[in-house]
Amino acid sequence: MGNEKKMVSAVTSMEEDFARWYTDICMKAELIDYSSVRGCMIIRPYGYAIWENIQKILDAKFKATGHENVYMPMFIPESLLQKEKDHVEGFAPEVAWVTHGGSEPLAERLCVRPTSETLFCEHYANIIKSYRDLPKLYNQWCSVVRWEKTTRPFLRSREFLWQEGHTMHATPEEAIAETERMLSIYADFHEHDLAIPVVRGRKTDSDKFAGAEATYAIEALMHDGKSLQAGTSHYFGDGFARAFDIKYTDRENKLVYPYQTSWGVTTRMIGGIIMTHGDDNGLVLPPAVAPVQAVIVPVAQHKEGVLEAAEALRARLADTVRVKLDDSENSPGWKYAEYEMKGVPVRIELGPRDIEAGQCVIVTRHNREKTTVSLENIETAVKDKLEEVRAGLYARALANREARTFACTTLDEVKAIRAEKGDGFFKLMWCGDPECEEKIKEETGVTSRCIPFEQEYHSDKCVCCGKPARHMVYFAVAY
Amino acid sequence: MGNEKKMVSAVTSMEEDFARWYTDICMKAELIDYSSVRGCMIIRPYGYAIWENIQKILDAKFKATGHENVYMPMFIPESLLQKEKDHVEGFAPEVAWVTHGGSEPLAERLCVRPTSETLFCEHYANIIKSYRDLPKLYNQWCSVVRWEKTTRPFLRSREFLWQEGHTMHATPEEAIAETERMLSIYADFHEHDLAIPVVRGRKTDSDKFAGAEATYAIEALMHDGKSLQAGTSHYFGDGFARAFDIKYTDRENKLVYPYQTSWGVTTRMIGGIIMTHGDDNGLVLPPAVAPVQAVIVPVAQHKEGVLEAAEALRARLADTVRVKLDDSENSPGWKYAEYEMKGVPVRIELGPRDIEAGQCVIVTRHNREKTTVSLENIETAVKDKLEEVRAGLYARALANREARTFACTTLDEVKAIRAEKGDGFFKLMWCGDPECEEKIKEETGVTSRCIPFEQEYHSDKCVCCGKPARHMVYFAVAY
Repeated sequence: MGNEKKMVSAVTSMEEDFARWYTDICMKAELIDYSSVRGCMIIRPYGYAIWENIQKILDAKFKATGHENVYMPMFIPESLLQKEKDHVEGFAPEVAWVTHGGSEPLAERLCVRPTSETLFCEHYANIIKSYRDLPKLYNQWCSVVRWEKTTRPFLRSREFLWQEGHTMHATPEEAIAETERMLSIYADFHEHDLAIPVVRGRKTDSDKFAGAEATYAIEALMHDGKSLQAGTSHYFGDGFARAFDIKYTDRENKLVYPYQTSWGVTTRMIGGIIMTHGDDNGLVLPPAVAPVQAVIVPVAQHKEGVLEAAEALRARLADTVRVKLDDSENSPGWKYAEYEMKGVPVRIELGPRDIEAGQCVIVTRHNREKTTVSLENIETAVKDKLEEVRAGLYARALANREARTFACTTLDEVKAIRAEKGDGFFKLMWCGDPECEEKIKEETGVTSRCIPFEQEYHSDKCVCCGKPARHMVYFAVAY
Repeated sequence: MGNEKKMVSAVTSMEEDFARWYTDICMKAELIDYSSVRGCMIIRPYGYAIWENIQKILDAKFKATGHENVYMPMFIPESLLQKEKDHVEGFAPEVAWVTHGGSEPLAERLCVRPTSETLFCEHYANIIKSYRDLPKLYNQWCSVVRWEKTTRPFLRSREFLWQEGHTMHATPEEAIAETERMLSIYADFHEHDLAIPVVRGRKTDSDKFAGAEATYAIEALMHDGKSLQAGTSHYFGDGFARAFDIKYTDRENKLVYPYQTSWGVTTRMIGGIIMTHGDDNGLVLPPAVAPVQAVIVPVAQHKEGVLEAAEALRARLADTVRVKLDDSENSPGWKYAEYEMKGVPVRIELGPRDIEAGQCVIVTRHNREKTTVSLENIETAVKDKLEEVRAGLYARALANREARTFACTTLDEVKAIRAEKGDGFFKLMWCGDPECEEKIKEETGVTSRCIPFEQEYHSDKCVCCGKPARHMVYFAVAY
């Protein structure tokens, strides 16, 4: 039991210092490690297994909607990056430059991809010739590099893992429908699989992706009231197509430009999981992406028959859930603390008396509720518990968001709430003028997160200038 | 039918120019495309789907043998790369150097990983403290960069995709057993899933991995008689552990060094598939990794009921095999040529008379044999055909290798056979002296590929110096 105490007390309390709590969880739950590569992280087996589960679910959704995976080079020649003016302006300041191959200087320097629009466009110019070649629905899973000054595990890292979809369509309508479809897939994945409620909306012009006509995003409110941009989907119009001279012959035999989208989610989502569901005992994982969904902890395992029964239970559950039996020599108390730290959704305790009574005890990680359950239909019982966890996590996260969402009609009100209650979503009416957006940020410290698809009108005046309001916008402090 | 002709004739004959034939297949089967990034390739959806199938099979084998996936940074600081002397000497001449982040020069330049031993070692030094922490069995799927002068799609590319396993063990015996286990997994995968016979053996010292004590490899003979190193597995002893100061407390409470391995296979295997099985009509894919295992081509599809029956057949087969129905308006002849080019193992032709007779025609890609098959047990029939294709491909590749394997006792004999019959495996007895190895290469043009585990002794003298022979070695021209 000494170990248990030590382990739990080693995590900073989230109320005391949320940022340190976050880093503690990343390290103590063995999600990441640091290395001598500054600003990059090592994703350890437990962290990477979460990412593999995320990939598996999303990849199946992408394929089910007709997308195909490809792999583009990780380098972009400087001249190629420069082809689209807004794009290079947005990314050039934060790319890593390769200048030498072996001992020889390169004729043209190459950046390590911060995103791959330019490479996809060059390829699309080669392979899109006729309307029969459209749509092109490509995606790639890879790592990208952005030379950030300040970094934090998962949330902002010089290298991170992601997927980037890049699609080409015959009409603007089709392309816009694609951006919406993919945003929906991201939103459903967050709400259903990650149990993280999200706001779906459009970014204001000041916050658009470099080169996009419109950027759509999902925003999630973390436990501390700050907002995490959890996924984005961009509509490019034919801007890149013109810059890269991608033309095809349409049904009327005319040479025309196609319309383009891109969309992506990253390992940042793991940060979102931690900050939405975690607590002072450690990580809390939504079942869909938990590497271990149920852990069996034998009680009094030295007694005859206990380990055999525990192993039999593991074997029974193996087809239904990702189950692990911990038959190590650590005490049950140590194991409880260990798997709470690791965020395993369901713990199954099985001791001599349980075995005799044909039952076991199930403890759900997020609320530590104990239930005694018959072994007879244990497969169903565990599955039901996992669904209970998922629903419970979602409800708790939604309640947190609701408690921290404020409709304000003055900037003073925003300031007062922040001073009194802390961070959250501030629903503010806005005239659409970027100057007001900037002023709101300067005066209150919150920035525009998105113009939600679900609009509400709690006032008809801009919160800043008092002129007629055009949009209700979510503002928050952002990660 | 005009299209069909054009398509087939567009591939250079393999007898005429094997290298051009190879590149033609890569392009015409839509496996790759080039970009403005010199020496790198774009892996297109059809090529990437092959890689995904390879990954899925191998990843399951790695996990079944206790390995866990991780992700290390893609950059290695110069000082870290330099920690192991032999390693840096081997790799520094061919790495890409990042010197700037945004507009600022870096304090220390970083190379893009050519392989990740150094990163894994740094991490292992952090996390291996006790004998309880061993073994560590880690793997990662990623891309690596080696600044090659001459490049060819899949075979030698400045960036390529691979997996790299890195493991740590308490004893040399355990570590050596691991290198052998992983080589076995690679060999079985090649022989069973890719239908490529391989020779398993150890590399001579001149051909070892930079920093390894021993390198094991599988070598496959391509259709043109040249050899492809298809996978390697390295035993490091405690060399890196000493260089990186990785120490742990053993059961006797002493501080000791662990023993290490690494092993990898790459997208190069796709090149091996092309060059082992392909023919003048295009790619020929082994069923286990074929993105489409069976394609249904309706005949006279304008006739009533044909498309409906074809779709019903597709739906029936979808649970058993990766099946595609091509109901496009192209002619059956065009489709036959298209899917032959793409190497789809089995084609199913279904026309009005077939439907009436309750049958279909199955054509196997590798030998173009036609069989009329009842629709009644079509699932089993297609599965059997796929196994027939696999076995047929393996037998053909093995026959090619046997016809091209020569046991020679003089270097003149090697030269005469190469002049008369072309390339192949040359089984030569060797005294073990690197000077003889070098002289064999200079005089005959073939290099040592491996010392096979299955030794044969067709002479007791070194083929070069006449002194007592220690090993039988496979020599060949290598890709």
